[in-house]
Amino acid sequence: MAESTSVTVLGLGLMGTALAETLVANGHATTVWNRSAAKADPLVAKGAVRAATAAEAITASPLVVVCLSVYENADEILTGDVLAGRTVVQLTNGTPRQARALAERVTGHGARYVDGGIMAVPQMIGGPASLILYSGDEEAFEARKDVLAALGSPRFLGIDPGLAPLFDLALLSAMYGMYAGFQQAVALVRSEKVQATAIEPMITAWLTATMGGFSEQARALDAGEFGTDVSSVATSQVAFPGLIETYLEQGVDPGWLLALRDLLDRAVAEGHGHDGMARLITLLEQPPA
Amino acid sequence: MAESTSVTVLGLGLMGTALAETLVANGHATTVWNRSAAKADPLVAKGAVRAATAAEAITASPLVVVCLSVYENADEILTGDVLAGRTVVQLTNGTPRQARALAERVTGHGARYVDGGIMAVPQMIGGPASLILYSGDEEAFEARKDVLAALGSPRFLGIDPGLAPLFDLALLSAMYGMYAGFQQAVALVRSEKVQATAIEPMITAWLTATMGGFSEQARALDAGEFGTDVSSVATSQVAFPGLIETYLEQGVDPGWLLALRDLLDRAVAEGHGHDGMARLITLLEQPPA
Repeated sequence: MAESTSVTVLGLGLMGTALAETLVANGHATTVWNRSAAKADPLVAKGAVRAATAAEAITASPLVVVCLSVYENADEILTGDVLAGRTVVQLTNGTPRQARALAERVTGHGARYVDGGIMAVPQMIGGPASLILYSGDEEAFEARKDVLAALGSPRFLGIDPGLAPLFDLALLSAMYGMYAGFQQAVALVRSEKVQATAIEPMITAWLTATMGGFSEQARALDAGEFGTDVSSVATSQVAFPGLIETYLEQGVDPGWLLALRDLLDRAVAEGHGHDGMARLITLLEQPPA
Repeated sequence: MAESTSVTVLGLGLMGTALAETLVANGHATTVWNRSAAKADPLVAKGAVRAATAAEAITASPLVVVCLSVYENADEILTGDVLAGRTVVQLTNGTPRQARALAERVTGHGARYVDGGIMAVPQMIGGPASLILYSGDEEAFEARKDVLAALGSPRFLGIDPGLAPLFDLALLSAMYGMYAGFQQAVALVRSEKVQATAIEPMITAWLTATMGGFSEQARALDAGEFGTDVSSVATSQVAFPGLIETYLEQGVDPGWLLALRDLLDRAVAEGHGHDGMARLITLLEQPPA
């Protein structure tokens, strides 16, 4: 456990509450604030101190953790001379552009700014599977790392405050893709009255096995070498119409598979048929006008 | 190793060649045929017997493994009295409808029909990670299971010959989704000059951790209980515009994420905002007119 530190938590939604609870449980003097004050009641019962205003909450601690529902609220609250000398750790979901703009404003008030992306649901906070990405003021991060580690494994990505939200959104995209694939697969077999729980272990095993291909795609991309002797863009492009036809025959929406078909068609049309699937990434980087 | 059995392999593309090589290596008398005969040369050098015609190849063995480039070729070749009494194991990629139609024709000629879906690339055939799905004539499958096991772990799905291609296409869909997510994530971080090999291990770890959610979605679906206290459709739907805006700001094509945004919007519009993400599967099963 880190040495006891005074910490303020602004925002007590599900995630903010989980953060504050974990800080209290780790013995830190924790001041909390939420726009609707009643949200703080359970935390006060556990030992947190309720602040009447956001400014009062900020004044209470050298470390201010922010977890609001939308970034715009953070822009409104994180202002004024009260910020001077404090470290703001901003965990509200946002975009790289929002993080950079807020960093500039907050540091203009004399505070240090660290942005963060929580790769966990509230139930996971404080547990071993909780991962939190950070970027921005590295010195401030290092000074508060022991306290932050109570919330989840901290991972510092770089001094650009936009990196944490960038990686956060990238990892979310990867997860949405994996879930979209799972959902499509389950819908397809359910069209023949197969139970979801019957195919789920097969999907899990199959994806675990095929995930090994990520490293080859990453290597190909960094090296700019797109040749393949395993699985070409053209092989997938040829198979796609049959795949989509099957969805239609089974009465299931082919969903995002249509977007992937278009990308495969474009790759072949642009002469990349013999390349490996990593080639699709460079096409995403050059959207059609 | 299974007792030596005479096996015929029709079609010597990359996959057919890998199948025939593995059968020869396992000591089975293997007869091969390919439309362009020269493809058989390396196999003949290893001990396979070349047949001059498809009919001659079929006549040579009680077990006929078919692996052609397209299903239409199988329809053409698998015909006539030579089929009587033989077991046809059809591993050409196709749709459930094609498998059922061919099964009817082949059994009409007095043969037993097993359809299969190979969940492996040619390099994996005969190795521990090769999985092959089968469906159709269960008795014929059981009688030949020992021979087929040399090619990959056999998994029998049911007596409907359409099940193997159905599961094959479902698992492929799941894999395409996972790879589409990976590709989107890598393209996003590369827009800030982050190397693909730098984020790849994070993506792999993150997807491995979040894959655990599949079983809950499958359970919810089979039970018809879509409530959630972890991650609702509405939570994702609210986050999606920021996600897509970030892609556009970074100059990266949001690709299939637009299709997922539309599905989330539809879910909320139809009153499913408080449900878990498994609800999206039931929407795919009821495509908009």
